Parts: sequence; structure tokens; C-alpha cells
Amino acid sequence: MTRWEPNARGRLEEAALELFGERGFEQTTVEDIAKRAGLTKRTFFRYFGDKREVLFAGGEEFQGLFVTGLASAPASAKPMEAVAVTLEAVSAWFRGRHDRARQRQRIIVANAELQERELVKLASVAAVLAGALRDRGVAEPAASVTAETAIALFRNAFERWVAEDGERELADVVRESLDTLRAVTATG
Amino acid sequence: MTRWEPNARGRLEEAALELFGERGFEQTTVEDIAKRAGLTKRTFFRYFGDKREVLFAGGEEFQGLFVTGLASAPASAKPMEAVAVTLEAVSAWFRGRHDRARQRQRIIVANAELQERELVKLASVAAVLAGALRDRGVAEPAASVTAETAIALFRNAFERWVAEDGERELADVVRESLDTLRAVTATG
Repeated sequence: MTRWEPNARGRLEEAALELFGERGFEQTTVEDIAKRAGLTKRTFFRYFGDKREVLFAGGEEFQGLFVTGLASAPASAKPMEAVAVTLEAVSAWFRGRHDRARQRQRIIVANAELQERELVKLASVAAVLAGALRDRGVAEPAASVTAETAIALFRNAFERWVAEDGERELADVVRESLDTLRAVTATG
Repeated sequence: MTRWEPNARGRLEEAALELFGERGFEQTTVEDIAKRAGLTKRTFFRYFGDKREVLFAGGEEFQGLFVTGLASAPASAKPMEAVAVTLEAVSAWFRGRHDRARQRQRIIVANAELQERELVKLASVAAVLAGALRDRGVAEPAASVTAETAIALFRNAFERWVAEDGERELADVVRESLDTLRAVTATG
């Protein structure tokens, strides 16, 4: 018999982030996480395949933010304008989540394996975004150049945002990165 | 007693690339590589720490190409102009190496662990390039935005180049990526 536990998923996430931060990712076991959350290992495995998944479970949702964000850009928008709309939408999701993002980032940066996983995640988002741009009629190489630049910009803005105190919204930092790109690429 | 083997390093590299391509990276052992090269395991370990290193041994040299490439740009060059000079210099290194690059890329793409390693390599080049731009007096966020965009562009051009038949030089494809970026970011 399984007892229903209110907000088990959220409690496990919170416990995992706390423990990864305190002891390090390697040094934390699934048992530790379940215990801190006041739940069983069995409950943990109902929500996550392993402890790494606690940090990456939102990957598909994250990727989806880019696709739906791009879909919300007017059909007439040029590639980089469409990307600006996309990044705006993705950034909106992070509103009110600065502390959590900062906590997660600190854990990722401290562990080479997690950093690799994060880079792979972003590379696959870039590939999906390039495909979505092609579907909008953007030709190659514009689609892949735009998508990979967009992800580079997002990564840049995100890293700067989590390093800040959270006074600015991610959207503001993204806009700054985009404006900077426009300034440095402008010729003449 | 160690017998001197002419061009042992090159022979090991060639044997490794052949075998990784034929059997897959996972399925190839150091023993296989040494045997194919007509050398001993002991000789292999004089040059490489493990089989993965055969694919990534040039990492520091690769990173150095970006640093010396950037140093060759005139002090008056704007960030993205300096990056264009840098990528031109890096691309020159790949002249006459299309087959090898293509062979290596095929191996990397077929293996998740190698892909991760490659992404980490590029991310660390981006960090070094951002530092080199700051040393030239480029302020943040322009330095990191420029560096990360440069690496995204290089990666994009490189992937397109190795997918081609080798008629164009990498430098041509890089220039096309850069022009595309300029076109998609231009406003008005």
C-alpha cells in the first residue's frame, strides 16, 4: 500500500538541492534525500530515476519553452527578432525563481559530470530550435546560426543572472546580451 | 630498453581513428590500437593516457590557436572584427585536414561521452577567449557575449564543413556563418 504524500515531488527536490549544496552531489545518496524530505526511497523512485534526474527533470519542459516561445513570434518576424520573442518567453518562466536557479547552478558548476550534462541539454535545445526555425521557413545556414547564437546568448545571460543578487529579471539580462550582440556585430 | 619507433604518435593516431570508425569507440581497446599500428601497448602509453586522449590530445593546441589568433588582430579592431581574425587563424590550421576532421567528427557524434567531452572543450575555449578579450580592454558583457557567440559560430561552421565534401575551406564556411550572423542581427 502506498500512502499519498502531499507535494512529495517538491519536497524531494528541495531536500536534494539542500543536500547537494551542503555535501556535494557525489556525497549525497538517494537515501539521504528521501530521509531529509521525510519520505521513503521508494517514494523517491516513483518520481525520479536517480539523483541526477532531480536536477534535470525539467529538461523537456525547458525545451518546450523555446518551441512554444518561438511559435508565439509573429510569422513576419526576422530570425533574430523571433529569437528575441522566444528568449523573452523562456525568461518569463524563471520569474520568481532566482534563488532556486542560483542554488541549482552552484551545484552544477561544482561537478564536471553535471556540467557536461547541462551542456548536452543546451546543445539539444539548439538543435530543436534550429529545426523549429527551418519549419518557419528560415533557410540554412541562417536557421542553425541563429539557433546556436540564441543558445549562446541565453547561456551567457543566465550565468550572469544567477551570479547577480536577483534584483533584475532574467529577461532584462537577456535583453542586455542581445543588445550587446547587436552592438558588437554592427559594422561600420 | 626502448626501441625508437619512427612517427609512433602519428601511427597510433591513425590506427585509433581507423578502429574507432570501424568498430566504434567503446569496442576498441588500447591493445587493438597498438597492434594495428604495429607497436606495443607500452609505446601507446608513452604518448597517451588512454584511448580517449587520442581524440582530444590537441585540445591545448586548439585553445592556443584562439589565443594567438586573437593576439594577431589589430588593437583597434572591434570585438567581432577581432573574432573574425581569430576564427580565420583557427580555420587556417584545418587546411588540408578535412578528411581527418570528418573522420574524427563521425566518431564523436556516435558516442555520447565523446560529445560531452567535445562540448566541455569548446565551453572552456569560450571562457579563455572571453578572458583574452577582457585583457584587450573589452568590457563585460561584451567580452563574454562575443566569445560565446564566436564559439557558437565556429561550432556551426565546423559541423557544416565536415558534412561537406571538402571543396570549400573551413575559413570560407566560417566567413559565411559570420556574414549570416551579421545579416540576422541587423535591425531595421
